[in-house]
Amino acid sequence: MSENPEIRVIGLTGLPEITRDSDLVGLILEAARRQDLRLSNGDVLVFTHKIISKAEGRLVRLSEITPSPLARAFARDGNRDPRSVEIVLGEARRIVKMDRGILITETHHGLVCAHAGVDASNVPDPDAVALLPADPDRSAADLRASIRERADVDVAVIISDTFGRPWREGLTNVAIGVDGMAPLLDYRGQHDPQGRALLATVIAVADELAGAAELVMGKLDRVPVALIRGYSYRSDGGKGADLIRQADKDLFR
Amino acid sequence: MSENPEIRVIGLTGLPEITRDSDLVGLILEAARRQDLRLSNGDVLVFTHKIISKAEGRLVRLSEITPSPLARAFARDGNRDPRSVEIVLGEARRIVKMDRGILITETHHGLVCAHAGVDASNVPDPDAVALLPADPDRSAADLRASIRERADVDVAVIISDTFGRPWREGLTNVAIGVDGMAPLLDYRGQHDPQGRALLATVIAVADELAGAAELVMGKLDRVPVALIRGYSYRSDGGKGADLIRQADKDLFR
Repeated sequence: MSENPEIRVIGLTGLPEITRDSDLVGLILEAARRQDLRLSNGDVLVFTHKIISKAEGRLVRLSEITPSPLARAFARDGNRDPRSVEIVLGEARRIVKMDRGILITETHHGLVCAHAGVDASNVPDPDAVALLPADPDRSAADLRASIRERADVDVAVIISDTFGRPWREGLTNVAIGVDGMAPLLDYRGQHDPQGRALLATVIAVADELAGAAELVMGKLDRVPVALIRGYSYRSDGGKGADLIRQADKDLFR
Repeated sequence: MSENPEIRVIGLTGLPEITRDSDLVGLILEAARRQDLRLSNGDVLVFTHKIISKAEGRLVRLSEITPSPLARAFARDGNRDPRSVEIVLGEARRIVKMDRGILITETHHGLVCAHAGVDASNVPDPDAVALLPADPDRSAADLRASIRERADVDVAVIISDTFGRPWREGLTNVAIGVDGMAPLLDYRGQHDPQGRALLATVIAVADELAGAAELVMGKLDRVPVALIRGYSYRSDGGKGADLIRQADKDLFR
């Protein structure tokens, strides 16, 4: 780390509504230029999953869904749209909790979150909801490759979503897709300034970067992408999927 | 949010080892000046809990501890120091998990974390471990008041620790003490650009700020304080304790 460590977190503004026809990378590069930010090697770009889902056409029309009896029963108790519940069930591989109108599932990606990440907010079509990207790590890799090709810079890409967590109030942004950087920083085997081993210290830096990005994104503004400059990540591989703890290793369960 | 939202996260460097005799606020103001950073109204200062614990004398000597049979049994199975285990048990009001050498407790503050936040890293005395501050919110309030008095600026103060979490790999920094800002940003009742209500969206911004600070702090460097500039927090009260979810409201349990 440098003597005067500083990170800048900058929201990219003025992006239009993203659709399947959008040139997302072109729009990002243009937005950066408008803000006098030339993308540089070592920058981190954090994308809210929603615009990735839109760009990938991961929208589902409620009017095309026939809810199952299970979805209808839960929707009735929780005062929800049964078609939306059906979509959530379709994205899940395990139900973690189904109670008081809240549906927490493990998605087919292995992510544990409310409503399987299915979300209607910031979707223009009132008949549509957005699913999570099918493979956020692949989405991140594709974006990174495209940025490298078109702007000749090597950046890291994070795709984020906003998740709740046990024991603590409020949601935080986490990284669901990562490419170009190690999402976990492993201090095990290293020593503090006093020479003591740092035990069990693995930091989920990609989640911290996603959280930092949320601070400039907000929820109401059209700031779906943040540029993080000055963070020296390790470029030695790793994916967002590495942040998902395997059940048999999860001491908190 | 401004048209060109940008947050700077700057590590304060060159601080000496903090002890009970240290003038912590004076040292922080001096470090900021050395880095040409004049503290300003609206800045956020994030302190790792460890230097607060040191400044408050929250160190315990292992040689003065007599471990209980429970502490000895667990220490034997987990290859740990039974005196350190005894200290952890003394800081706990509930054992969440005691297995495979890992001890997850709910502390007397209500925080759920490994080893009740008891930690030997970065403590110079090999016979001592650091406890969490007794009341991190009060510590934050005292620091903020002192900074206001001595530098005539109104900042927000966050005291952070690095916690694990269920379902996800790695630890992230979270806020255990907060003063001068709302730790939770509540979007409920507000609408997205399409006019849809944003349901259930409360963001734990203090945790995201703590996480952003960790990115400049690292674990091996002497960067125990970060200055965050450009984040428009709400100053309408709230404490770190607000981030602790009450058990009966915790849908993930």
